[in-house]
Amino acid sequence: MKKRKILAVTGIRSDYDLMTPVYEAIHSHEDLELEIIVTGAHLSEAYGLTVKEIESDGFKVVDKIDSLLNSDRASGRVKGLAIQLQGMVQTVERVNPDFLLVLGDREESMSTALIGAYMNIPVAHVAGGDRVIGNVDDQVRHAVSKLSHIHFTTNQESAERLIKLGEERFRIFNTGNPGLDRLKTVPFLTKEELSRRLNFEIKENEPLILLIQHVISTEIDQAYLQMKITMETVKEMGYKTIISYPNSDAGGQQIIKAINEYKDLPFIHIQKNIPRLEFVNIMRHASCLLGNSSAGILEAPFLKLPVVNIGNRQKGRLHAENVQFVNHKIAEIKEAVNKAIFDEEYRRVVNNCKNPYGDGNTGKKIANILSTIPIDKKLMIKEITY
Amino acid sequence: MKKRKILAVTGIRSDYDLMTPVYEAIHSHEDLELEIIVTGAHLSEAYGLTVKEIESDGFKVVDKIDSLLNSDRASGRVKGLAIQLQGMVQTVERVNPDFLLVLGDREESMSTALIGAYMNIPVAHVAGGDRVIGNVDDQVRHAVSKLSHIHFTTNQESAERLIKLGEERFRIFNTGNPGLDRLKTVPFLTKEELSRRLNFEIKENEPLILLIQHVISTEIDQAYLQMKITMETVKEMGYKTIISYPNSDAGGQQIIKAINEYKDLPFIHIQKNIPRLEFVNIMRHASCLLGNSSAGILEAPFLKLPVVNIGNRQKGRLHAENVQFVNHKIAEIKEAVNKAIFDEEYRRVVNNCKNPYGDGNTGKKIANILSTIPIDKKLMIKEITY
Amino acid sequence: MKKRKILAVTGIRSDYDLMTPVYEAIHSHEDLELEIIVTGAHLSEAYGLTVKEIESDGFKVVDKIDSLLNSDRASGRVKGLAIQLQGMVQTVERVNPDFLLVLGDREESMSTALIGAYMNIPVAHVAGGDRVIGNVDDQVRHAVSKLSHIHFTTNQESAERLIKLGEERFRIFNTGNPGLDRLKTVPFLTKEELSRRLNFEIKENEPLILLIQHVISTEIDQAYLQMKITMETVKEMGYKTIISYPNSDAGGQQIIKAINEYKDLPFIHIQKNIPRLEFVNIMRHASCLLGNSSAGILEAPFLKLPVVNIGNRQKGRLHAENVQFVNHKIAEIKEAVNKAIFDEEYRRVVNNCKNPYGDGNTGKKIANILSTIPIDKKLMIKEITY
Amino acid sequence: MKKRKILAVTGIRSDYDLMTPVYEAIHSHEDLELEIIVTGAHLSEAYGLTVKEIESDGFKVVDKIDSLLNSDRASGRVKGLAIQLQGMVQTVERVNPDFLLVLGDREESMSTALIGAYMNIPVAHVAGGDRVIGNVDDQVRHAVSKLSHIHFTTNQESAERLIKLGEERFRIFNTGNPGLDRLKTVPFLTKEELSRRLNFEIKENEPLILLIQHVISTEIDQAYLQMKITMETVKEMGYKTIISYPNSDAGGQQIIKAINEYKDLPFIHIQKNIPRLEFVNIMRHASCLLGNSSAGILEAPFLKLPVVNIGNRQKGRLHAENVQFVNHKIAEIKEAVNKAIFDEEYRRVVNNCKNPYGDGNTGKKIANILSTIPIDKKLMIKEITY
Repeated sequence: MKKRKILAVTGIRSDYDLMTPVYEAIHSHEDLELEIIVTGAHLSEAYGLTVKEIESDGFKVVDKIDSLLNSDRASGRVKGLAIQLQGMVQTVERVNPDFLLVLGDREESMSTALIGAYMNIPVAHVAGGDRVIGNVDDQVRHAVSKLSHIHFTTNQESAERLIKLGEERFRIFNTGNPGLDRLKTVPFLTKEELSRRLNFEIKENEPLILLIQHVISTEIDQAYLQMKITMETVKEMGYKTIISYPNSDAGGQQIIKAINEYKDLPFIHIQKNIPRLEFVNIMRHASCLLGNSSAGILEAPFLKLPVVNIGNRQKGRLHAENVQFVNHKIAEIKEAVNKAIFDEEYRRVVNNCKNPYGDGNTGKKIANILSTIPIDKKLMIKEITY
Repeated sequence: MKKRKILAVTGIRSDYDLMTPVYEAIHSHEDLELEIIVTGAHLSEAYGLTVKEIESDGFKVVDKIDSLLNSDRASGRVKGLAIQLQGMVQTVERVNPDFLLVLGDREESMSTALIGAYMNIPVAHVAGGDRVIGNVDDQVRHAVSKLSHIHFTTNQESAERLIKLGEERFRIFNTGNPGLDRLKTVPFLTKEELSRRLNFEIKENEPLILLIQHVISTEIDQAYLQMKITMETVKEMGYKTIISYPNSDAGGQQIIKAINEYKDLPFIHIQKNIPRLEFVNIMRHASCLLGNSSAGILEAPFLKLPVVNIGNRQKGRLHAENVQFVNHKIAEIKEAVNKAIFDEEYRRVVNNCKNPYGDGNTGKKIANILSTIPIDKKLMIKEITY
Repeated sequence: MKKRKILAVTGIRSDYDLMTPVYEAIHSHEDLELEIIVTGAHLSEAYGLTVKEIESDGFKVVDKIDSLLNSDRASGRVKGLAIQLQGMVQTVERVNPDFLLVLGDREESMSTALIGAYMNIPVAHVAGGDRVIGNVDDQVRHAVSKLSHIHFTTNQESAERLIKLGEERFRIFNTGNPGLDRLKTVPFLTKEELSRRLNFEIKENEPLILLIQHVISTEIDQAYLQMKITMETVKEMGYKTIISYPNSDAGGQQIIKAINEYKDLPFIHIQKNIPRLEFVNIMRHASCLLGNSSAGILEAPFLKLPVVNIGNRQKGRLHAENVQFVNHKIAEIKEAVNKAIFDEEYRRVVNNCKNPYGDGNTGKKIANILSTIPIDKKLMIKEITY
Repeated sequence: MKKRKILAVTGIRSDYDLMTPVYEAIHSHEDLELEIIVTGAHLSEAYGLTVKEIESDGFKVVDKIDSLLNSDRASGRVKGLAIQLQGMVQTVERVNPDFLLVLGDREESMSTALIGAYMNIPVAHVAGGDRVIGNVDDQVRHAVSKLSHIHFTTNQESAERLIKLGEERFRIFNTGNPGLDRLKTVPFLTKEELSRRLNFEIKENEPLILLIQHVISTEIDQAYLQMKITMETVKEMGYKTIISYPNSDAGGQQIIKAINEYKDLPFIHIQKNIPRLEFVNIMRHASCLLGNSSAGILEAPFLKLPVVNIGNRQKGRLHAENVQFVNHKIAEIKEAVNKAIFDEEYRRVVNNCKNPYGDGNTGKKIANILSTIPIDKKLMIKEITY
């Protein structure tokens, strides 16, 4: 039997990290072969040129499609989508895959789904059905679901939401969050080893905060101020804090600017781009994850890590008891962080929290479905259920 | 008070015809001003260079954005979307409108919705919530709804479907089909005048068929054969038949090829692009509309015109009793056409059919809503209802 | 030794026909391998979808890049260039060739040369140094020379012109017109066989005209009228005439329109796209080539075929005694055609005319140079000689 | 009489600074009006978002066209050109100018020239005919000359070179370097004022170096190392040094990286983007300009400023006695800098050097020619002179 060819699309480090277990499961599945389109922030030095990682991970990169404009205006993002779409059409036509595979709600999710829909190639979409109000990403995610043929959700609630939104049941599979597969397998580093690798000392009995804060598309104007508030809080608290740069979205430069105004504080460590090994081990050793990263929702409960989520990003999203939501106010943030670090009762709750995002076997589940689901008229012709 | 600026996008003659009453109502509304982006088939000689009509209608064209590739491959359509999107971003940023306005489920609908969503400009979408299985357009239409902020549906069923699909009630207005506004106002031509204008004789007491058949995106390969069957039927029946060219979609060239193989039949009249005045009057005088044009669903009941819809396009769509659905089979088509022309009982039913698509005042209703709806956070931040 | 990889770019049937002998010589050279980017009119049904020929000729097509917009405005051509360039960058980066190879003065010549110059890949340009006043193509050809690293000219005069224009001598090779290689090898068809293949009778003792007329970019507005004059002359003369469609340039639709207004004349035969075998044999049997095709300049002297060149296209170009230049006037055209067909003295001159465009071994010469020329700093860093 | 509309294109701060006097002269000319397309690095926060300056200077910006990809690969630059070209076509068609105006040899120079040539709009090109071996810019500059209709050279040698390269004499005007116009008019700042504005102390009797080093496209790989050598020399010499960031070309990030490794040296001042007022006054007060900026060739002789030009950029270019050329070697650089600062004899020579780049009235000369030169067939149809 001819192997089914899966053409995956990845546009940014954070998504690649989540999808790696899926890629590995496809790559090693005897009835599947994997090819990857690399686009977006992966190709930018400013975001760590992470395409090199993908290549050194041994995956077959079939085209590198620059799409990230050096622009901070709102138009830059959708113009980048247009550029990406134009390049990807050419690649997909050449590669002629059996499936397109993409995660989430970014520009490349939309590009991929549009190509599949117009070119009659089934699109497998990972992490549809989630709900995160207040961001263009939410609208994009649901639109991508409407264009996709198979939905691999990360949790049961999202699977049920897709049904309510008119998607046919046979297209929906709750396979869990693939990021958890890798959390299980990333090697453990001691605090000492981690300190050496980061060139930043993490001592045994002191609080450690991991801070990642992204822009919200509807609040681009406030990005700088929002980050200033967070950084001011970090300064006042004085705890060891490791800060990772935000995504390449419009406004990201504002966040970076605010971060760098505090770069001389002795107790903080700023890193553009933290490799996965170090990142997971920071989460393992941290007392609290601060900011608005989706890792707080998706991965932190698996690691029993308390999260303080600032502002509207991630609001309304399915989460476990490990997340406290606060506003962009110094006092609120401080109180929540201190509760996360020192409140024994709360830390016990977090330690027993249930993780709604699966059991860490997502990659294999997805690969198995892609290798067996019939590619037929039923799959290709979508009917909304209303 | 500053007038609200509405930036409308139109990509093809058939859509422009439907939207003209809306454009006119906006243009003449004292609190609104209208600017138009012209793209797609409007700019192509092969499709009648209909941009000239738009300009001579007196609307302000702010940019002409070529996007129609001379390609019949499936990839051509989505690459055209990418090119269109890239150009439109630039225009929208310059024009900086209060609303984007677009109809339907074509490439420009998607481009417009994406720009609005990413650039935080409210998108008013006309004709969402419809349901036409078997075509990429259906997926695109629902995806566009997910990205749009205001829905002007053409019928009550579609309004209710949008609610079921998770759209918030306050965004949905059943304003009816704008095409009907114009049906009311297009001047009446006698058969004699019409004959002279078309240079094709239409006699008083003979059957007259209007034939328009488009490609279905999921059946591109069969486009030629499907049209051959229709043309063969036309030949066998021998009735006077006026044929209009299909849309500029992939595969359209195949349809045109099939049509032209019959161009020497004395009783047929082929026209690339029929102006609105003639088109409406052909519908008024025709005995039957044949093919798969959406005019059969949307406009024909208003004119009490029987329709024979061939194949899967329009299937599952809300329609009145004037439509018979048949397969691509000569015998079936012939029987249905003869019933439409000669069966007095059936013609009586059609003559009394109820039109689910409104009362012909759509343009004014839409203009009024656009002039008064608050542009605020509630409008801009979408929440799906599940 | 690793084979050198040559990445050729072709955008239109007429150029492909000229280059085929070069492609074949590269393809069969033991130290070279050939890959081809297909773009432009090759991918359009309206121009015969000639990509299929390239594939059936056994060449490796590495990407199909749609770039031909369905537009007749002047902007359409340069926007198509932009689209083509954007797609080709992606392909060239992936293929990573040792040389880029392109002919002439069309959009793809410019795209290829720009990519080579910016990406530091040597560009071998065929047919530089020619001089054809009155057309944007002339400016483009010289600009392409400035960006290219190796010049394969079709005649000595052009080689010397390149030196005068500041190009270094070591980059310039007068290898002749590759089109002649194929003229030598195309199988001979009798008039009878040719008639059967064309489905158009060519008798033994009657005049036969081959007519090809393209648009001039600076005279787009006049394209329709110019072709009307030619067609009116054809009608008046009443000789058997075979007419081929023009290139896909802006205005081409006007030419086609004028042609089709005469399509019912019994003594003419119109063909969108004449395959090479038939085309060469028409030239072998024709009494005269009419219009403004470059075949009249480049190939006709090799076949001793009289040419009547109408208007400004080809003017000022190196040519043999077989070409008469006339204006867009019926009387002038008629007189020149009759001289070409019936004037024994003139036909003797043509029969002895010297061909300045080489000996029909161009393909091998180019392949040999590409296989041996050192790819070093001297080749890559251009110095103009003044 | 209707004013002639000049559509200028600018893509980067350094070019805008040079062209400002021309823009001002056009803007204030009674028979001309000026509109500007802003593209490239002007729109990037990373390069100072200099579009704001253009707007605050009071010029009419007709479109902002993002084109700068966040990519350091060689392909990024030419893909950016494609994106820019696609956007600009749309703007030029809408604005429909009498002339296009552009400077130099960057991507926007090529985009502008291609659009003018294909759309039959005369292109006025500033600074053609220069000769700077070893860079893709040189090839691009000459190719742009081939596509342009009017040449405004900055010096007599370049005017003569264009004639040798086959350009017609009537198209060529030696109007001088427009940058000098502004050098004359920029207000004088004392060292004290300048120190305060830069927040960097410049004392009365100490050496001051201005350092600007750009990437050479053919030596991208060595960009980092080359800058390290320069920075190491700066460190060893220990003189006050003001460093400006390089252009946005591929490899620029490498230069920036090398600069920032020395950011803690107390005697250096790094600034992303130095406003024109400060920049000119730094040149007025500096003892030496170091690196490879074209300001050293074009503006420094006007100010009698000694220049040490490192490496191959600017090599072979017309220059006055104020420039010393050195290799990327610490000893060579150091010796030349010390000669520039301390060798009285050499400083006397520099002080008397003749400036080959005009008298500072370039803007007016260009505006006058643009307002009077006939726009006719002679201008539009280019004939190379060989």
